[in-house]
Amino acid sequence: MTDTKTASKTDVIIIGAGPAGLMLALWLARLGVDARIVDKRTDKVPKVCFWNPDESGLIRRDNRVVNGRAGLSRFHEVVLHQGRAETFFLNAIRDSYGPTDGVGAATEKTATWLPQRRIAVERKVMPTFLSIDEQTAGDADAYPVTVKLRHLSEAEATPTQMLSNVQDGLFRSNLNPPDDSTITPRAAHDGAGPAAAEDEEVVQCKYVVGCDGAHSWTRKALGPEFDMVGEMTDYIWGVLDIIPITDFPDIRNRTMIHSATNGSLMVIPRENRLVRLYIQLTEVSVGSGRVDRSQIKPDMIIKAAKKIMSPYSIDYHYCDCRWTAYQIGQRVGNHFSKLNCVFLAGDAVHTHSPKAGQGMNVSMQDTYNLGWKLGLVCKGILRPSVLSTYELERKAIAKQLIAFDHRFSRLFSGRPAKDILDETGVSMDEFASAFRQSHMFTTAVGIRYQPSVLVAAPTDSSAGEMIGEDDVEAQENVLQSQAHSTSVLSTACIVGMRFPSHQVLRHADARPWQLHHKMPSDGRFRLVVFGGELSSASASPPKLDRVNKLGVWLAGTLLPQLPTMSPMPGTTNLHGGGRPGYGLQAQNPPSIIDILLVYAGASDEGGEVNSFSLLDLHEVYHPFDPKLGHDYDKVFVDRRSHHDGDGKAYENYGIDRTQGALVGVRPDGYVGLVTSLDESGWPEVSKWLEGILEPRANKGE
Amino acid sequence: MTDTKTASKTDVIIIGAGPAGLMLALWLARLGVDARIVDKRTDKVPKVCFWNPDESGLIRRDNRVVNGRAGLSRFHEVVLHQGRAETFFLNAIRDSYGPTDGVGAATEKTATWLPQRRIAVERKVMPTFLSIDEQTAGDADAYPVTVKLRHLSEAEATPTQMLSNVQDGLFRSNLNPPDDSTITPRAAHDGAGPAAAEDEEVVQCKYVVGCDGAHSWTRKALGPEFDMVGEMTDYIWGVLDIIPITDFPDIRNRTMIHSATNGSLMVIPRENRLVRLYIQLTEVSVGSGRVDRSQIKPDMIIKAAKKIMSPYSIDYHYCDCRWTAYQIGQRVGNHFSKLNCVFLAGDAVHTHSPKAGQGMNVSMQDTYNLGWKLGLVCKGILRPSVLSTYELERKAIAKQLIAFDHRFSRLFSGRPAKDILDETGVSMDEFASAFRQSHMFTTAVGIRYQPSVLVAAPTDSSAGEMIGEDDVEAQENVLQSQAHSTSVLSTACIVGMRFPSHQVLRHADARPWQLHHKMPSDGRFRLVVFGGELSSASASPPKLDRVNKLGVWLAGTLLPQLPTMSPMPGTTNLHGGGRPGYGLQAQNPPSIIDILLVYAGASDEGGEVNSFSLLDLHEVYHPFDPKLGHDYDKVFVDRRSHHDGDGKAYENYGIDRTQGALVGVRPDGYVGLVTSLDESGWPEVSKWLEGILEPRANKGE
Repeated sequence: MTDTKTASKTDVIIIGAGPAGLMLALWLARLGVDARIVDKRTDKVPKVCFWNPDESGLIRRDNRVVNGRAGLSRFHEVVLHQGRAETFFLNAIRDSYGPTDGVGAATEKTATWLPQRRIAVERKVMPTFLSIDEQTAGDADAYPVTVKLRHLSEAEATPTQMLSNVQDGLFRSNLNPPDDSTITPRAAHDGAGPAAAEDEEVVQCKYVVGCDGAHSWTRKALGPEFDMVGEMTDYIWGVLDIIPITDFPDIRNRTMIHSATNGSLMVIPRENRLVRLYIQLTEVSVGSGRVDRSQIKPDMIIKAAKKIMSPYSIDYHYCDCRWTAYQIGQRVGNHFSKLNCVFLAGDAVHTHSPKAGQGMNVSMQDTYNLGWKLGLVCKGILRPSVLSTYELERKAIAKQLIAFDHRFSRLFSGRPAKDILDETGVSMDEFASAFRQSHMFTTAVGIRYQPSVLVAAPTDSSAGEMIGEDDVEAQENVLQSQAHSTSVLSTACIVGMRFPSHQVLRHADARPWQLHHKMPSDGRFRLVVFGGELSSASASPPKLDRVNKLGVWLAGTLLPQLPTMSPMPGTTNLHGGGRPGYGLQAQNPPSIIDILLVYAGASDEGGEVNSFSLLDLHEVYHPFDPKLGHDYDKVFVDRRSHHDGDGKAYENYGIDRTQGALVGVRPDGYVGLVTSLDESGWPEVSKWLEGILEPRANKGE
Repeated sequence: MTDTKTASKTDVIIIGAGPAGLMLALWLARLGVDARIVDKRTDKVPKVCFWNPDESGLIRRDNRVVNGRAGLSRFHEVVLHQGRAETFFLNAIRDSYGPTDGVGAATEKTATWLPQRRIAVERKVMPTFLSIDEQTAGDADAYPVTVKLRHLSEAEATPTQMLSNVQDGLFRSNLNPPDDSTITPRAAHDGAGPAAAEDEEVVQCKYVVGCDGAHSWTRKALGPEFDMVGEMTDYIWGVLDIIPITDFPDIRNRTMIHSATNGSLMVIPRENRLVRLYIQLTEVSVGSGRVDRSQIKPDMIIKAAKKIMSPYSIDYHYCDCRWTAYQIGQRVGNHFSKLNCVFLAGDAVHTHSPKAGQGMNVSMQDTYNLGWKLGLVCKGILRPSVLSTYELERKAIAKQLIAFDHRFSRLFSGRPAKDILDETGVSMDEFASAFRQSHMFTTAVGIRYQPSVLVAAPTDSSAGEMIGEDDVEAQENVLQSQAHSTSVLSTACIVGMRFPSHQVLRHADARPWQLHHKMPSDGRFRLVVFGGELSSASASPPKLDRVNKLGVWLAGTLLPQLPTMSPMPGTTNLHGGGRPGYGLQAQNPPSIIDILLVYAGASDEGGEVNSFSLLDLHEVYHPFDPKLGHDYDKVFVDRRSHHDGDGKAYENYGIDRTQGALVGVRPDGYVGLVTSLDESGWPEVSKWLEGILEPRANKGE
């Protein structure tokens, strides 16, 4: 235990180890940043499940809608338990520091890549005090935030509900009072009195991120202007995870049942034989805004389900020990950050119903957006002003989510319309139509960030619809990029949106790869050089001049001005699949810019892929390291694969095979710049990166 | 330590914990059989790598061959390190007893499924004595094999080569003397004298399987008639795993280089930046059959590589600490079993060069074939006479492997022919052609087991080429099945060959599955009911009579005669993906026969999949359990999927959409019977299973 007189230091403190906090911790672990993540609870906390729609059909009487739009992504939607998601994160954070299976790695060699301290969740640790020194808040060398952390006993860290013998599924439901409130009084009740000084430590840090849920302590500590704005509805829903015993024919499909008078029910098939039921509890009174929680038990929830599903039967033997109930409310905070020193993410800054499966998703996306920015600022690579883009980008998404949820909750919970004249009822046609339209948002593939220092606005056109664009507030404090995009060069790489993935073949071995697999989340920006047609049977020797001229400029002018990435725990530069921690060190640290060349294979070449050798290309496309040799993993060709069909990458990216394009991609995979391959485009690349990155030889290097 | 006077008992002892031994242990763990697996070495043993061809092209000067035949399998070939394969096995064996991540499972409930003892590798344990009581060898209740196991000290269990400071990559190379020989003398040298009685235990068991490698102690213990037969060649090859620093253009392709006079070299790209080089060592003398091992060091091997690859350069900074050398030899044992009590598998009974990447593969296939047979006999489900099929099936494969290897080694190691008149040289055209033809064998997709009690011979035709059929010796002691197949009913399900996998949609939720995913290795036989077209827009109500009539016979007549599967550690009947150990118990144990219905969706139905409800089908196709409800995971339809294309299963299985077929599949996924869906086929199903399985109510139940 640290003495309160002596403050320790760390770059970042993450408060709360749910999916949002763990996503952030994973970024910082990958980037080798010194950080801590604390959670006031012990490990015993029961998990609340969230869900995503799976790939089956949405079915209601006489209507069936296919779930998901074909071709939107190569991945399908799945139902994933929050506990499993958290386990993936915990494992990935651990693996960031090197392999643990002892196979294929020289473990001892990884030691020099490690930061002083590995990030691991510190449980039973609760913040009790937070203050920001506004004088030093902009200073990259300062530690302007002071946090007091209290170390709890096992009893203090165990929720009251867990201590009783009565199973109470309402723990963490929003029908409950904030669970923080149980901690201090009980400690006092134990006779320990106010927290003893030796149970507290003081930490000075650069940044604090509150990922501490709907009852966020961090948010409250920032003052009343951080309160969330919005309302609770009168709709109460119960949730039950069971192995159903039923004759209802569509129990393994995602099914929405609107009964005439008993309320609505949603069936979400889960893994194995489990099914999640969302059941509207019409018999629970919401009276004066306070719900009588004592009414809500599994027996009462299944009874409501039986009424709604009649004349079919439904019962269960196995319950997954997970049931809860909640009151639908939609609220969002006005501020996502204070002085760009303290940030709020996930439920701490926006809450809504879980109906669209966006709770865990949007929370993780918040910190996926914030993590690389914070990490690269801590490493002295990114300009601190870029941190303003977090609120700009994520508040707009939160508002879109609330609007989406508001519309959907009404459709889910409302009484079905009796006929076309029944104006207060919900039209079942409108419901099915809204569901169909929702996929771009629920998959997050459709979200678009507005122009900023990270996203160079197109000069030629707006190039694509921005979803919910009218919700976006003007953010005067966020710098605009000096660079400009030319959106016509790639009709599918849209600035502010996710860079799409298509199959290409690796030049060195003709093996097919999804281009995303070559763009791991390692904190690097990427310049994807769509070099056009480099080789053809009619052109001998192949026309390599254009990409090689660009190579000379990249290697000779651009890269020497930009920072490099070391030190990092795992250097994805060393291995194909992006698995961190392989442990072999390159002699030279990688640049912050990863350059990938994707050329168009001429269609008249038949089976031959390599009509020129990799070494005919400028070295910037196959970086040579004295210890590791050439990098064979940076040049790809768009052509048909022997085993795996044709990715048609140029066609799918909307890029002309003769003209080509340069696409700048942010570390989170969003398109930041689209410009020309030729000299006219080069200054745009420089301007874009200069607005974002600190110059080389800064103090962080 | 067990006293030598008191023998303990176990059903199976596996000697050797390499891939073959671990594959066997995994089967027995999954089936809940009481077994032990011992290995004389500690965990520190360096791993020898084996390889499979990957999906890139085989390249030699002016010639390029695509590696692998498109469409043969939905999987690609990969290069996989033996150490990683062993790690997968160790994890899978552990997971057989229930989940370890604590997520989504009620762990405490799994307890009743566990056998008394979990299988885990016992290291530093060496067999010293083995005898079979021939009187009781056929008695299922007896423990006819006596084994003495000696528990070694850490020093004894560490190979001499590991104790010295000189790195010696020849450990476990076949250029070395047997490494067993170092153990006993050193123990005596330590002053401990002969093994003390308290270091030994005596175990009585039903079966022993020797998976203890080329110098197999088990094989020697069985006597000289078990010696392997065959020869060593004059070819010496070195193996080196490095990150190459080279200007050779095809270093990331699987490349074969025949130099004019300096020998041959093969490039096998591995994971990350690693490359494996197989290098012919022409300067090592083989003189009087003994190789001068002291000549062979990494420097010498890379020097040989430089000569062969000239004028290109090759060097390295990182070596994967794995190098070795071996002399090519091809030998196979005459007997794979003694009295069906003691079995030999893998290198213990066949050795060959690693050139075709078949060393680890064929060894694992041996025990994949033996494991379920042994496990089900121990559980009283399978007739013990079925054990004779192990030698019948696997000896034929071993002989094919030796013949294949003999041909390939000559092609790899021989001097290239100067011209067409150079008869002692190797024709490069012949080499490329042989490589192309080898895929059916190296992928194991093409292997075919001959008729036996497990494989009901077709009466109508031979239905397909049997590879190496003329190598198969008549095995008089193996029973032939009383049942007969009608091969014309399915032109792609060929008896004795692997049941192929194609995509079908699950009736309950229209989700696409590869049919193999519904056929996990859980020890159960499968009856795949290709029920033909059950529904069509023109037939109302749908024509379910045929499959429901079969259902009545299956549920009323066949299944009650056959054994059930419990107890097992994980019951794959409970969950979709075959993941063992979910921990929820069905009230009723599953039958030894798993019934899957695959019907043909009528082509005129448009987007509708389910024109009838699952509950319209006989219950045998959706087994009902009072605790778990209906099983929604047994009925599938052949039709186009919304997201994932059209599996065209009936077309690909070569089954008529009107006629249908019944296909019986062994627990290892091989086709055992093809017969008619109608009454004429039912007696064949009965006869096939009666020849293999003990009747119900046997002592094992």
